[in-house]
Amino acid sequence: ELFVLTYGALVAQLCKDYENDEDVNTCLDRMGYGIGVRLIDDFLARSAVKKCRSYSETADMIAQVAFKTYLGITPSVSCSSAAGNEFSLILDKNPLVDFVEELPAERASLCYCNLLCGVIRGALEMVHLEAEVTFLQDRLKGDAVTEIGITFLRKPE
Amino acid sequence: ELFVLTYGALVAQLCKDYENDEDVNTCLDRMGYGIGVRLIDDFLARSAVKKCRSYSETADMIAQVAFKTYLGITPSVSCSSAAGNEFSLILDKNPLVDFVEELPAERASLCYCNLLCGVIRGALEMVHLEAEVTFLQDRLKGDAVTEIGITFLRKPE
Repeated sequence: ELFVLTYGALVAQLCKDYENDEDVNTCLDRMGYGIGVRLIDDFLARSAVKKCRSYSETADMIAQVAFKTYLGITPSVSCSSAAGNEFSLILDKNPLVDFVEELPAERASLCYCNLLCGVIRGALEMVHLEAEVTFLQDRLKGDAVTEIGITFLRKPE
Repeated sequence: ELFVLTYGALVAQLCKDYENDEDVNTCLDRMGYGIGVRLIDDFLARSAVKKCRSYSETADMIAQVAFKTYLGITPSVSCSSAAGNEFSLILDKNPLVDFVEELPAERASLCYCNLLCGVIRGALEMVHLEAEVTFLQDRLKGDAVTEIGITFLRKPE
């Protein structure tokens, strides 16, 4: 809860700093990237982590080990492309928004949890997996679930 | 670690926003206050929490339950006034600075963890205990230990 509230303070500060939601989203993503680049060392040092042999295994590792470790939740994973390089993480609940009722009307385009996308992107890059990571659905915006899309940019081998 | 790195991103953002260390410290304290005011509900809902009958018990509760719960550490507590209203929490280690080597020379007056003071102050105020909370020593500034001073402002009954 201290983390969740501290994250809220960070987002609130960025909303003070930037009028434009897109600027806040970009900033959160960039901050997250810097965090992911550092967090990966801690992650790889954990015993449950073994080498992934496919994008599918990597997506499962993110959902079942990384999310579980750092956020205490386990999103479900689905592959969303025939090419096997696009995945969705579906979060039934999202502890980061525990104290957020809804986005204020003037912040309708804010991706409140965009830091997470940056964290995933940064961490993947450090293991030589370039990826695009974005929110595809967000319960804070009225969607039924929260969905993070991960697209690995190189073709699977 | 995600929390620790996110906290680092928050401090870095405030350092961008404010040139003056004192302004960053004030802002961290104010943010912490807002967090403490909300965190207290979560804290009181936990089973280990029972009513404190003295300032001494309150200080022990902060160190042994609150710090343990939210930061995973247990500072030692000492009473530092004959009047029995001033306490020191001594932190041998401080997870919030795990990724901080030292403060940059141009940020020598920064209280990196000042959010914690605000959190304690805000939480205490919600249980009708007004207090001043400040860092008295900080390993990031070369002190041997990190010490948070809590001064309860009303005379003990």
